[in-house]
Amino acid sequence: MGKQNELGVTPMSEDVSAWYNELVFKAELADRGPAKGTMVIRPYGYRIWELLQEQLDQRFKDTGHENAYFPLFIPQSYLQREADHVEGFAPELAVVTHGGGKELEEPLVVRPTSETVIGEMYSRWIASYRDLPVLINAWNNVVRWELRPRIFLRTTEFLWQEGHTAHADEADAMEETLKMFGVYQEFVRNVAAIPMVAGEKTPGERFAGAVRTYTIEGMMRDGKALQSGTSHYLGTNFAKAFDITFQDRDNEVRHVHTTSWGMSTRMVGAVILAHGDDAGLVLPPRLAPIQAVLVPIGRGDQGDAPRTKAYELADRLRAAGVRVHVDDRDASPGFRFNDWELKGVPLRIELGPRDLEAEQVLVAQRVGEVDDRGRPVKEAVGFDALATFVPERLDAYHDQLLQRAIAFRDEHSGPADDWATFGSLVERGFAAALHCGRTVCEDDVKARTGATPRCIPTDGADERGPCVACGEPSAYGKRVVFAKAY
Amino acid sequence: MGKQNELGVTPMSEDVSAWYNELVFKAELADRGPAKGTMVIRPYGYRIWELLQEQLDQRFKDTGHENAYFPLFIPQSYLQREADHVEGFAPELAVVTHGGGKELEEPLVVRPTSETVIGEMYSRWIASYRDLPVLINAWNNVVRWELRPRIFLRTTEFLWQEGHTAHADEADAMEETLKMFGVYQEFVRNVAAIPMVAGEKTPGERFAGAVRTYTIEGMMRDGKALQSGTSHYLGTNFAKAFDITFQDRDNEVRHVHTTSWGMSTRMVGAVILAHGDDAGLVLPPRLAPIQAVLVPIGRGDQGDAPRTKAYELADRLRAAGVRVHVDDRDASPGFRFNDWELKGVPLRIELGPRDLEAEQVLVAQRVGEVDDRGRPVKEAVGFDALATFVPERLDAYHDQLLQRAIAFRDEHSGPADDWATFGSLVERGFAAALHCGRTVCEDDVKARTGATPRCIPTDGADERGPCVACGEPSAYGKRVVFAKAY
Repeated sequence: MGKQNELGVTPMSEDVSAWYNELVFKAELADRGPAKGTMVIRPYGYRIWELLQEQLDQRFKDTGHENAYFPLFIPQSYLQREADHVEGFAPELAVVTHGGGKELEEPLVVRPTSETVIGEMYSRWIASYRDLPVLINAWNNVVRWELRPRIFLRTTEFLWQEGHTAHADEADAMEETLKMFGVYQEFVRNVAAIPMVAGEKTPGERFAGAVRTYTIEGMMRDGKALQSGTSHYLGTNFAKAFDITFQDRDNEVRHVHTTSWGMSTRMVGAVILAHGDDAGLVLPPRLAPIQAVLVPIGRGDQGDAPRTKAYELADRLRAAGVRVHVDDRDASPGFRFNDWELKGVPLRIELGPRDLEAEQVLVAQRVGEVDDRGRPVKEAVGFDALATFVPERLDAYHDQLLQRAIAFRDEHSGPADDWATFGSLVERGFAAALHCGRTVCEDDVKARTGATPRCIPTDGADERGPCVACGEPSAYGKRVVFAKAY
Repeated sequence: MGKQNELGVTPMSEDVSAWYNELVFKAELADRGPAKGTMVIRPYGYRIWELLQEQLDQRFKDTGHENAYFPLFIPQSYLQREADHVEGFAPELAVVTHGGGKELEEPLVVRPTSETVIGEMYSRWIASYRDLPVLINAWNNVVRWELRPRIFLRTTEFLWQEGHTAHADEADAMEETLKMFGVYQEFVRNVAAIPMVAGEKTPGERFAGAVRTYTIEGMMRDGKALQSGTSHYLGTNFAKAFDITFQDRDNEVRHVHTTSWGMSTRMVGAVILAHGDDAGLVLPPRLAPIQAVLVPIGRGDQGDAPRTKAYELADRLRAAGVRVHVDDRDASPGFRFNDWELKGVPLRIELGPRDLEAEQVLVAQRVGEVDDRGRPVKEAVGFDALATFVPERLDAYHDQLLQRAIAFRDEHSGPADDWATFGSLVERGFAAALHCGRTVCEDDVKARTGATPRCIPTDGADERGPCVACGEPSAYGKRVVFAKAY
C-alpha cells in the first residue's frame, strides 16, 4: 500500500491499482463476499448499477426488445453441443453435483452465459418465419470461475444483461448485431461519459462460438483498456447445435441466425477507472446516486436557518428531477466536503448564514476550475435560480467529463509504425498498428509487451503494410488497436 | 386433461389444476426449463413481474430502503451456524462442489435465502449505534430444491426480493417487521387487486430461524390459500450466529435485532389463480403488460381507415400513460378477441368502418356486464373522450376485480365451531377456528383434511374456547384460519 491521503486512500497518481482497491471499499461501493471471488455490491455501488440498468433497459425497449428470464442451471451436456463454446467456458464453470440431499444423475452447470439454454428454448418456440425475429433480453447473474478476482472488473459472479435474438437470415442478424453495438456506444458516451474505441475483435479474441464479435473498449486513467460491452453475430452455430429451425415463406426449413450481446457490472469499474482522481470517485451525473449534495454550514443555533433552507431547496431540486441529498451531519465543513469528493458527487452546494442573508448558495463542481491555491472556484447562485441552474449545470458537467476523457484518450493514443513506438505507446495507452493477424504473432506481442489486440476500429481508414511486430503483410485492411487490458 | 375449450385450455370450472398448467403455456407466460424444476419466464409473464417489481420497489424506497446485491454462493458452513435455519433449509439445498475445473475445499451452497451471508456482512459493517438501522433490500434469484415443481408456485429456482434490516432493539425491529407486512398488504390490494388474510404464523409454520413470522394469504379461485409474502422478526438469532454487534450510546456492546421479508415470482401465480376464469387470464390493470388492445375491423380496403385510426388512438392513449397494443393481424375479429381474452387484457377497443363514421369505438371489459346471450356489453366511446375514459375505466376495473375477489373470499370463508363445518369449509375455502396450538394437533388436522393453519389474523377478535379438532383449550386468544394451500 502506498502513501495514503487524508481520506485513507492511496493517490491515483501514485498507484492506480492500490487506489482502485482502497476506493471501492472506502466509498462503500462494494465489499468482498465470503466465497472466494464473489462480491457484495453495497447500496451506493448498486444504485450506480440501477441507474445504468434503467437507462440501458429503456434503450432495449425502444429498439423493440422484451425482457425474459432463463434458468440459472444448465444441464452439463448442453454446454458440450457447441464445440468452441465448451472449449471457451469449460475452465471457468461452477458445477452443482448435489441437490435436495442427493447426488444428481447429471451435474448442472451454473450459467456462465445462456446461449445454450436459450438455444434449447428457441428451438421449442420458433416454427415459422412468422415467429421471427425473436428479440429478447435477460437481466441476471452469471458465474465464471476467476482465479485473480478484482471487484467489478473480474469476479466469479457478476450481474449483467444478455440479449439473445434469432433472425431469418444473416443480413437481418448482422443488422441487429451492429444495432446493439451502436446502442452500447451511444449509451456509454451519453450516460457514462466515456468515449470508446469501437470495432471488431480479431479471430483470437472472439466470443467462444461467435462468427464475429464487436467490442467497445474504454481507456482507463492508467492508459489500460477495459472491454465494456460486446455484440456477437453467432451465425448458425447455436442454431445447428440446438436445432433451431423455421419454415420460411417457401416452406423450406432453415436454421435461424442468432446474435447475443452483453454489458455487465464491469461498467461500474469502468466508471471508477475512467473518471476518478486523487481525491476519489468522479461520477458522471447520469449515473450518480447523488447528483448534488447540499451542505448547510453553521455551528449550533447558527446552523438552524441554513439547515431549514437546505431542506427547502432540496425539495425544489427534487421536484426539478435532481437526485439530491442534504448532509447536515454534525461534522466540520471540511470533513463533509472531503467525504462527498471521495464519493464523486458532481455538485456540492454550500449554504452558510451569510449566504442565507444574500439569498444565495455557493456551488462547487467535483471537477472544475480551481483558484491560485488549487481550491475549487465556487459560483454564487440565487435561491430562485437554483432549480434551473443545477440541471443545466449537470448536463454541462457531463459534457465536460466526456471532453476530458476524449482528450485523455487522444493524448494517450497514437499510430505505431515501428516496434519502439509500439512498445512505448502500449506502456501508457493505445497503439494503432498494422498487424499480420496471425495468432502466433498476437501471442508473441503479448509475451513481449503485455498488450493484446483490443479491436479493429470500425472507423479506421483503409491501410496495408508490414506487420508492426513481424514484418509480414498486414491483415484486415486496417490498423488494429493494441493495449494492455483489464 | 379435461375437455378443452376452443382455445385449447381446460375450463377452470372443470379442473383448476389442468387449467392453470395449460394456461401458463398457452398464454406464453412461462415454460419449463431443461433442468428439472426450473422455469423460463417468457416476455409476457416477465413483464408482469417487471411491473410488480417497479411498483413494489418504489414502496421500498419510499420507506427508506436501499437496494444492494449479495453473492449467490454461500460457504456451506455458514448455513450451519443458526440451528433452526440449517434444519429448515438443508433438505432443499443445491451444492456446488467443483469450480474452475477443481474440487472445492469447502462446498458452496447456492443461496436458498441470504440471512447467513448478509449476517456475515452486517457483522463487518455495523460497529456503532450510529450505523443503525441498516435498511437494505435485494432483488435476486434463489434456489430451493423442489420435488413437485409447479411453474411460478413452486420452482427450484425463483426470483424474489429479500429485505434484510438491522436495528438497535426489539421495538425498532418489530416496527420494521410490521411496517413491511403492511406494505405487502397495501401493495397486493392496490396493485394486484387481491384481498389478503393477514396475520401471524403459528410456531410450526414460522420461517426457519424467525421469532415471529407474519404472512399474507390470498384465496385462489379453487378456495385454496397461497402464501404471497412474509415478514419475519428474527430477534437476535442471526446476530448471535454471525456476531453482529454494536456499541450503544452507553458504550455497551449489544447484539442487533434483525428482520427479513420477501415476495417472489409466486405472486405471478397468485394473480393467475386469484382472478382467472374459463376464458383464460384476467389481469388486474396495474400489472397488465397490455391494458387496452385496439382491434381494427374490416376486410381488405375496408380495414385501412380503421387501422390508421387505431394507431392514432393508440398514440393518444400512450400519451395518457396507458399500456396499449394495436392488433392488426390478418385474422377474424373472433379469433383476435379470444386471443386477448385468453391473455387477460382488461379492455378491448373495437373499431370498424361504421364506428369510424360515427367517430367512436366500442369498449368491452374482459370481465364485465353481459347481455342475454352471454356476450359482453360494449360501450360506445367517442374518439375525443377515449384518452380520459380509458384510464378512469382501468381504475374502476381494478376496484371491480378487487370487490369480486373480496366477495369470493367472503363467500368461501366462515367460522368453524365444529369438526363437520370445519371439514366442509376447508374443502372449498377458509375456516376460522379455535385451535389448541399443539403441533401434534396441527399435524393431525392436516392428515385428516389436508388443511394447515395459514395464520392467526391480525384483525381477529379476542376469543377463547375448545379446539375445533381436539377439544383442548384454545391458544393465541383468537381464531386461526385454516385452509388447503399451494
